[in-house]
Amino acid sequence: MPKPYSIGVDLGGTNLRVALVSRKGEVLKKIKEPSTGDIFESLKKAIQGLLSPEVEGVGIGVAGVVDREGKKVIVSPNLPEINGMDFKKLGFRVPLYVENDANAAALGEATMGAGKEIKNFVMLTLGTGVGGGIIHKGKLLAMAAEIGHMSIMAEGEKCFCGNLGCLELYCSARAIIGAATRSLEAGAESSLREVTQGNIYRVTPEDIYNAAMEGDNLSREVLKNAGKYLGVGIANVINIMSPDAVILAGGLIGAWNIYVEEAIREASKRAFKSLYQKVSIIPASLGDEAGVVGAASLVFQS
Amino acid sequence: MPKPYSIGVDLGGTNLRVALVSRKGEVLKKIKEPSTGDIFESLKKAIQGLLSPEVEGVGIGVAGVVDREGKKVIVSPNLPEINGMDFKKLGFRVPLYVENDANAAALGEATMGAGKEIKNFVMLTLGTGVGGGIIHKGKLLAMAAEIGHMSIMAEGEKCFCGNLGCLELYCSARAIIGAATRSLEAGAESSLREVTQGNIYRVTPEDIYNAAMEGDNLSREVLKNAGKYLGVGIANVINIMSPDAVILAGGLIGAWNIYVEEAIREASKRAFKSLYQKVSIIPASLGDEAGVVGAASLVFQS
Repeated sequence: MPKPYSIGVDLGGTNLRVALVSRKGEVLKKIKEPSTGDIFESLKKAIQGLLSPEVEGVGIGVAGVVDREGKKVIVSPNLPEINGMDFKKLGFRVPLYVENDANAAALGEATMGAGKEIKNFVMLTLGTGVGGGIIHKGKLLAMAAEIGHMSIMAEGEKCFCGNLGCLELYCSARAIIGAATRSLEAGAESSLREVTQGNIYRVTPEDIYNAAMEGDNLSREVLKNAGKYLGVGIANVINIMSPDAVILAGGLIGAWNIYVEEAIREASKRAFKSLYQKVSIIPASLGDEAGVVGAASLVFQS
Repeated sequence: MPKPYSIGVDLGGTNLRVALVSRKGEVLKKIKEPSTGDIFESLKKAIQGLLSPEVEGVGIGVAGVVDREGKKVIVSPNLPEINGMDFKKLGFRVPLYVENDANAAALGEATMGAGKEIKNFVMLTLGTGVGGGIIHKGKLLAMAAEIGHMSIMAEGEKCFCGNLGCLELYCSARAIIGAATRSLEAGAESSLREVTQGNIYRVTPEDIYNAAMEGDNLSREVLKNAGKYLGVGIANVINIMSPDAVILAGGLIGAWNIYVEEAIREASKRAFKSLYQKVSIIPASLGDEAGVVGAASLVFQS
């Protein structure tokens, strides 16, 4: 008989999140702890604490490239401690599913969030880097979807991944902070100097957004410029995947009225008209929970 | 009872092709004529000539953006005469399927060609422009797959599609001819002057490839440079779609040992290592027949 619950894991951010989730995608119990120390042991313990005969399986979303068949992490640039981690060694007897975390988050939005009624969408997670997930006919496509590592500047700057000119170098939180810091270093006038009390290297995307809203030109330009490149990426996504929606997630969507609005303007100029007309560009709705909900949904999707 | 044949149409190149195709993908009869005059009438007549009670349906591949549900051409940049063409008006009583031509060609390779044993691949058709088609778990994804109109130079030159820096501006036959012509106009030394008998505007990709093979530096550089950008596009495809293979089709694959080899070299440097390791980059095998075979296969896929 099909069981009513599954366990979803979101692994790879600053926190390890594990949740007991219903078939519908409701989070019933959750555990959140810093992903430090012995991650494998923390993960094992957290899952053990939620396991019961009512649990159909465990789904794990990992920041990085995964081996879905082998149930392993191939490489996690942001959390190198888990490179090569083999989840089969957790030793649980229930079925196990492993996905990239941005893919899992997209599935989460499809299950319970902004994508619930949308058959075909691409989700972009805009944080320190830029992640992606592709939902086609209601199902998560088992693709890398590393949209943040699509080159939009063939001769652009070097990315840590080895490529040149990757999308995330121009529109991620890291990119926004970098652009603001470089301008401040070069002596540009900006209220960010006061906000950061003289230590410009402490500037956050929130500081930049708040300053922009209070009329700081530098901050506004930095956000608009990043938004423009996000728009280049969104136009590429539209021309390739022709989705019904592009769902945007991650901390940066807090800057919607400057950063995302600029992205939408740029994408509208660049994408095929006939494809742009049918696409909605909308915010995700689950926030930090998308990852665990989507990871748990992997169990019921297959 | 399922019927043994379907009819495939390839519409949008210089020729209209219509074929009677078996379930396995064998071409039993074919009609080929220039796509001039009253295309709608020619198409109707050609299909009529092949229809029989043994035919399950008709699949049509069109160069351009199509409305799959509405069974219409939305826009065909290369064959504007068919913009808006409504295939329902053909009036046949068998089921009708409409797809982009590069998508159909990818499905053709999946059915009978180089992709027959490959579950997940992306096909790039390298001709005057660059088309794409995505096969996932053996099925054609109903996406635009306009990979030639992915910007790889956010601030690059304007494309006729409205975007800037589209992949095909740097690696298509049109791009190769343009680059050679511009160098010749600027006075560069090259055996292409003799080959074209002084009229440099007559130069073809074959001329350029042959000259390169005979040691012409300009021709070699032009092909290698185009190959490099093709490699940027292939790396993006690998990072986004993580396919088992990238299948290359179209006239330009005749220049494999210069142009494609350079693309492979560039892609190997740029794509995620773990994804690049599992991908094969191989030539298509059906040539001009991929389009009709794939269009016919649409009928049996659904």
